[in-house]
Parts: sequence; C-alpha cells; structure tokens
Amino acid sequence: MCLPIEPNRNGLKSDTFQASLRTIYADTDSMGVVYHAKYLEYFEYARNEMLREIGYPYKMLEENGIYLPVREAHLKYLRPAFYDDLLTIRTAAYQAQNHSLHFKIACEIFRDQDHLVSGYTIHFTSNSEGRPARPPRRLYRDLHSTLFHHPNDL
Amino acid sequence: MCLPIEPNRNGLKSDTFQASLRTIYADTDSMGVVYHAKYLEYFEYARNEMLREIGYPYKMLEENGIYLPVREAHLKYLRPAFYDDLLTIRTAAYQAQNHSLHFKIACEIFRDQDHLVSGYTIHFTSNSEGRPARPPRRLYRDLHSTLFHHPNDL
Amino acid sequence: MCLPIEPNRNGLKSDTFQASLRTIYADTDSMGVVYHAKYLEYFEYARNEMLREIGYPYKMLEENGIYLPVREAHLKYLRPAFYDDLLTIRTAAYQAQNHSLHFKIACEIFRDQDHLVSGYTIHFTSNSEGRPARPPRRLYRDLHSTLFHHPNDL
Amino acid sequence: MCLPIEPNRNGLKSDTFQASLRTIYADTDSMGVVYHAKYLEYFEYARNEMLREIGYPYKMLEENGIYLPVREAHLKYLRPAFYDDLLTIRTAAYQAQNHSLHFKIACEIFRDQDHLVSGYTIHFTSNSEGRPARPPRRLYRDLHSTLFHHPNDL
Repeated sequence: MCLPIEPNRNGLKSDTFQASLRTIYADTDSMGVVYHAKYLEYFEYARNEMLREIGYPYKMLEENGIYLPVREAHLKYLRPAFYDDLLTIRTAAYQAQNHSLHFKIACEIFRDQDHLVSGYTIHFTSNSEGRPARPPRRLYRDLHSTLFHHPNDL
Repeated sequence: MCLPIEPNRNGLKSDTFQASLRTIYADTDSMGVVYHAKYLEYFEYARNEMLREIGYPYKMLEENGIYLPVREAHLKYLRPAFYDDLLTIRTAAYQAQNHSLHFKIACEIFRDQDHLVSGYTIHFTSNSEGRPARPPRRLYRDLHSTLFHHPNDL
Repeated sequence: MCLPIEPNRNGLKSDTFQASLRTIYADTDSMGVVYHAKYLEYFEYARNEMLREIGYPYKMLEENGIYLPVREAHLKYLRPAFYDDLLTIRTAAYQAQNHSLHFKIACEIFRDQDHLVSGYTIHFTSNSEGRPARPPRRLYRDLHSTLFHHPNDL
Repeated sequence: MCLPIEPNRNGLKSDTFQASLRTIYADTDSMGVVYHAKYLEYFEYARNEMLREIGYPYKMLEENGIYLPVREAHLKYLRPAFYDDLLTIRTAAYQAQNHSLHFKIACEIFRDQDHLVSGYTIHFTSNSEGRPARPPRRLYRDLHSTLFHHPNDL
C-alpha cells in the first residue's frame, strides 16, 4: 500500500494523492539511470498536483502572496528508475508539531510495485521576500482540513 | 582556429572570448553522452563570461533594467561530449544588420582540437517586462565598441 | 515553410500528433519564464510520445539497436511560457529529401491558442556506437508509412 | 554535528577540499533563486573535483569498474543563492562506521561568508551493474589514507 510513510495511520486524508509521469532521456545520466537530483523535480511535480487537487494550486497561493520555500529535503534511493519508466509518486502532507508554519511533504516513488525512492521535503510559509509569514486564517484552516494529517500522526 | 564562424573576417574584436567548463554526470544522458539541450546552458555560461569580461556582467545590465531575452537558438551537433570532458566554448557577437536591437552570439564548443558543437543564439534588448527596448546610449556605444563585429561582418 | 502542422493540410499522417505537459518551477528561471533550453526537453517528450503512438516507442527501437541521435536543433521563441502553464506540443515528421537516414521532427508549442515556440530537431539513424546505420527494412517501411510526410511536403 | 569542515580541526585530511562555481540563469527558478534540486548537482561537481584532487578522478574509477552510486541525499537550505553568485563548496568524506562499503560526503555551500546550504550524500561502491562490490584492495587503502576521516570523526 501506498503511503504508510509513518506507520499506524488510519482514516487520514491525503493518503490518496498520487501523480504519474514518464521519464525522458533528459532525466537520465550516463550510468543509464535517472540522475539522483531529478527526483526532487518529480517531488515538486507531485506536490503541485496535490495542491491543485485540494483546490489550492501553488500558482494561486503565490498570487495571494503565499510562498512555500523548501527548507529541507531528503532522498533515499532504493532502486534505479530508467528511461521511459512510468512512475507513480504518492504524497502525504504533515503539519510540523513544533512549528506551526512548517510542514512536511512525504513522497514515495514507484514503478508498478517496485518502490524506487523515498523522501520528503520540509517547507515553511513565507511572503514574497522569503520571510516566514502566517497565511491568511481561512487558507490556513482549509489547508489543515483538507491536507494535513494531525500532528500526532507524524 | 577558433571562430571563423563566418569566413574571411579579420581584425575583429571578440574572436578571443573563451570560457571553459567541465561536464558532470548531471549533464549526460543514458546514451552515455552530454544531453543535447545542455549545450544551451554551456552557451549561456560562455555568454555570461563574455559580458563579464568586457565589463558588463549581465547581472549589472539587469540592475540597469536591460534584459537580453533569447529570440532564437540553433545548434549543430558534430561529435558527442562525455562525462568529465573539459570543454572550451568560443564566442563572438554580431550586431544584426537589419534590426538595431537584435544581435547574434555565435558559439563553438571544443574538446582539445575536436570541434563538438556549433551554434548561436539571437537576442534582443528588452525592458523588465520583456518588451523590446533600446539600451541607454552610452551602454549601447560601449557594447558596440567592445563586443560587436561590424554588421558587414555577418 | 517548415510547419504547416496546422489546418488546411490534408492526407497527411502525422498532423495529429500532440502531447501535453504542465510546466513546473524547475523549468523556470529568475526572469520568471520557462528557461529557453527546457523546450528541447519538451520536444523530446513529444517525440517520445509520437513514436509510442505509432507503435515504435523509442525504448523499443533502442532494444533493437536503433538510435536516433540529434544532429541539429532549432528554436524560435515567440512568447514566454510561465510556471504551471499547460502546454501542448504538436509534432510532425519529415523524411529528409537529400539523405535517406536523416529526418526532421518539427515541433510547435502552444498555450491554448497562443503560439509560444516553433522549432525542429534533425535526427539520423545510428547503431549503438553512434555511427550512421540504416534501420531494418521492415521498420524503415513502417516508419515511412505511419510517420513521415512525403519529402515534397517539406 | 555533521560538518566541522571548518577551522579548528587538525590532523584531518579532507578538510581542505574546496571547489568553486558560478551560478547561471539555468540554475534559477521564477522565485528568483537557485532551484533547490540544483544543489545536488553542485555537490556532484565538488565531489568530482575532490576525487580528482586526490588522484582518483571518478572517470578513472569507472574505467576500473568501480562506481559510487548515491544511496541517500540530504539538503538543508539556510539562505538562497541567486543568479551569478560565486559559490564555494567545501567537502569532507567519512567512512561509514557500520558498513565498510558505505561512505558519506558532507558538503557545505558558501557565498563569501554566508552559509547557504548544508548537506550530504551517502554512497556505496558498486560494480557496473549497480551491485555492491568491494573496490580493489590498493584503491581501498589509498582512498582511506587520502580521503576518509576516521569513523570516530563522524
């Protein structure tokens, strides 16, 4: 199953976010596999689609002066992806317990049943100058109700 | 010899602009060679260094509200480059005869004596919104005297 | 003219190849637009999908020892694309008149009705070492009957 | 803490590995900063130069059938880098305590005195098929004596 990224979770909302893409030559390197930095772009793509799906495409957030810079990223490479692979990226979002403006987006990449990459990015909400800023209350509430797992799910 | 990009040229100024770089794994693809789109990044790098060398780093141009968007690009692939190759990019700039705000930067990429790629980009001068705009007179004159070959050299 | 992919062509086969993608942050640059080299990756993506659609995914060609290295590329930038744009890439393939192993894939990129980029890549058929090689007769015939416009369409 | 590459370490060998590069437009995104995945390419570049400096350029390792696939990567973004920044990447290599074929390369990126990014990659030694494999004894010894900090430096 997809996203028991942290074990023992049930009834949570964002388990089901899923995006697909097909690798191209540009993504690969001369070892014959997808270059390791590319997966961060796949993560971004999946994150974009997750936000779009809940009705808050990132572009719209930006137009409202809300940015989500990456604060941290982690990747674990389990198996290589190759040219022309059809990949599935499963994502789940978590509110950070200790910092109300930080959240974590966990990503797992699969080719069919093969689990290729596991990772996450940590983001904070900022204004257009990159300074931490709390988003408008309504958006904040909506993101919570549609996107985030409860802190104790982390 | 370096840049007889257009034959029969003599006494011209920018023949000598030259930049070097070393390819990394990220630049290659699973055919074992540098991916064909990467050379446009190498061109950009060489262009940046050429502008820096004549005292007008692109960043400074931008700070003065002058942008040089790419209008056209052409690449001819003669031989492949590989991982860890040390490449030399030779550049020359030409003022377009028929349009005072357009110019062409020709690039040739070598590994030692091997000529790998030939190409050019065509740029125009724009304001920060991307609209064509004539640069300040002094800059214009300076670019001409240090960078451009005479139109009839094209 | 190169790419009357558009209306008013009749009897031609590859008019209809079309692929879509959505731009991500990774594709853009600090001028706020899609970086000019990225479009060559979009071209590759569309080319891959065109080959897949006619039953000859490039991966399969490779498995049969047939490669299609890029020999030349050209891009004309008409209007910028931005983050999160949904782009359509229309492609058509042409057999080179003067060289039976060379062919041209013309690409046009649109955002809705806006024509953003026009360009092409020229390829040749090679063996795994990158040397020009004629593909097996049956494949050659199939590619012709499904993919290529008559030379006089060029 | 991870990377006391900095002052006040003595007797350690790899403290001094350092590579520089200048960012280009291609590296940036439309938030006006270097795109977060790019730093993994900068890490690769610094790693390549570190290996070259100790006399074992990665290309040579590959020619001897030794590969160093990335097993894990971590990045912490402290401050953004911008277009045309001159960056310094400082690297140090550590032998993993618990696995003789794993090692960690820590990287820190600076612009002058500003510390922008902290991170590491974890690698293992593999054969050309990507399977874990011990490198030849002499190379192994050499890498140890020139490159690795003692495990207890971790």
